[in-house]
Amino acid sequence: MTDPRARAIQSPDPFRLSKLYPDPMTPEEIARASADKMWRLDAARTAADMTLLSVGPGVARISMRVRPDMLNALGVCHGGQIYLLADSAFAYASNTYDVPTVAQHCSITYLTPARPGDLLTADAREAHVVGRTGVYDVTVATQNGETIAEFRGISRAVPRATIGAAP
Amino acid sequence: MTDPRARAIQSPDPFRLSKLYPDPMTPEEIARASADKMWRLDAARTAADMTLLSVGPGVARISMRVRPDMLNALGVCHGGQIYLLADSAFAYASNTYDVPTVAQHCSITYLTPARPGDLLTADAREAHVVGRTGVYDVTVATQNGETIAEFRGISRAVPRATIGAAP
Amino acid sequence: MTDPRARAIQSPDPFRLSKLYPDPMTPEEIARASADKMWRLDAARTAADMTLLSVGPGVARISMRVRPDMLNALGVCHGGQIYLLADSAFAYASNTYDVPTVAQHCSITYLTPARPGDLLTADAREAHVVGRTGVYDVTVATQNGETIAEFRGISRAVPRATIGAAP
Amino acid sequence: MTDPRARAIQSPDPFRLSKLYPDPMTPEEIARASADKMWRLDAARTAADMTLLSVGPGVARISMRVRPDMLNALGVCHGGQIYLLADSAFAYASNTYDVPTVAQHCSITYLTPARPGDLLTADAREAHVVGRTGVYDVTVATQNGETIAEFRGISRAVPRATIGAAP
Repeated sequence: MTDPRARAIQSPDPFRLSKLYPDPMTPEEIARASADKMWRLDAARTAADMTLLSVGPGVARISMRVRPDMLNALGVCHGGQIYLLADSAFAYASNTYDVPTVAQHCSITYLTPARPGDLLTADAREAHVVGRTGVYDVTVATQNGETIAEFRGISRAVPRATIGAAP
Repeated sequence: MTDPRARAIQSPDPFRLSKLYPDPMTPEEIARASADKMWRLDAARTAADMTLLSVGPGVARISMRVRPDMLNALGVCHGGQIYLLADSAFAYASNTYDVPTVAQHCSITYLTPARPGDLLTADAREAHVVGRTGVYDVTVATQNGETIAEFRGISRAVPRATIGAAP
Repeated sequence: MTDPRARAIQSPDPFRLSKLYPDPMTPEEIARASADKMWRLDAARTAADMTLLSVGPGVARISMRVRPDMLNALGVCHGGQIYLLADSAFAYASNTYDVPTVAQHCSITYLTPARPGDLLTADAREAHVVGRTGVYDVTVATQNGETIAEFRGISRAVPRATIGAAP
Repeated sequence: MTDPRARAIQSPDPFRLSKLYPDPMTPEEIARASADKMWRLDAARTAADMTLLSVGPGVARISMRVRPDMLNALGVCHGGQIYLLADSAFAYASNTYDVPTVAQHCSITYLTPARPGDLLTADAREAHVVGRTGVYDVTVATQNGETIAEFRGISRAVPRATIGAAP
């Protein structure tokens, strides 16, 4: 595998935040730095023009405007695009401790269709972390506070060395 | 709402397949025509360069190659992108009867990371339809038959007139 | 179907709370009366010796002690028994408005095993209600506050006349 | 913890099937012996009068008749009781390799109510096993072949020594 991003992240030492920032950091600073690191490498948020509104230990809020090219054949926002937004907020919230964490199982319930032009915000917060397993809840709502979807993500912290390893 | 696609689909008569194609159609022909109609209006499949391999009553197979811009910060395919593929196969499979059907609740279990360059195929098939509710299972696998993710979608058939209606 | 309970509930009028209690009721009183009505007919809570700790609009808390006959072959509380507790709290919380509501889709994530003798409490609260669909979250924890499982229930309000109807 | 069943299972050696039955066993024999071992210790199946119809590598079928004491306040079978049946079939199917396996995440979609007197059969089969994670699907149907519920269980194989260990 030749992707330079994967290689960089596989090497455990240089990218550990504690190596990059040797001074003691607060949990808020670690969360922010973790998000910044992910954000730079995240093609999905670029493609969807997402905005990272806030991030902290176990929480993240991301917004996205529903563009014409995000609609499905019924003229409302593609459910997969809503998932992409919720899943991103989950990924940022669950990666705020400088411990690589991946999605294991996710579910989403669609409550109201999102319309073209809607500004959607995904609000992710940690419900539980037990051992290496985390449960995160994400609510996606419009600018008017109307709930579009409710998402739940089950995460698993992974040893740094195993990430992106060749199969 | 001014989106012309939504308007077109809201008007129940002219777009009903039985109106467009007055001769009796086989279930296979209805499935194919339903998919063709969706495919033309589907921006997500265009953005991800998806290929519709096959479609029939209650089933659909779609493939997608993992591009560099589909990777997450760990250098493997973004889970949201895998969901988008599985959800698309689910949408096509559940809309093969000329009855508008939407996703209500979906879940996905990630089993193995997908690598840059992998050719992923999502294979969707109907497990049950009871009343207006359907259960569809979708397996996402690589060109080598390695299972990447298993998805389950719960669909709900909706009255044509209510689709895309203003809130 | 000859079960007298089903017949009683099928007749819409006499059992509507507003008929039984003609004076205006507060939401808290309606929640309490709805729960009392369900509690009397609920064989599952009897079999498991459950205690209804509290109930209010959209919320319910139920406890249960893990008995020797609730263990699985591994000597810890059977996952199905934990589900039964969480699902009960969900049922009570979602039926606090005097509108018959049934479970459509439920999921549970097991985080820590429950031991013989543990006193488990299921805390159910409403996350969203949109139209006839509700989303309820239930946390199951021990007497020490250790989280055992996290449950999510999707409910659907049903017309009273259709409940328990012959197929 | 003093429960003798847990102690027995914690001791890894004497209960390993290969110790109990030193002759080489076929996969079918291992599945059958694993199920027999679980069945003897399973209080839930006794309480619900379940019948183990068949078991093999990755599959199990269990039936249960809906008794009056399994009804909910609406006069139909309690959803938790249906879950208990499906979860049991999942547990037996996922424990057919002589590797202790626990439920991590389960979901169930209720499609049709089950009536008093219905004979329900839960048919569990393995969809995928990748590493220590398994995906199992379970369909619950009546004597008439009517689908009552569809269940999906995500399992995780656990080191024998950690099972039932004190917290």
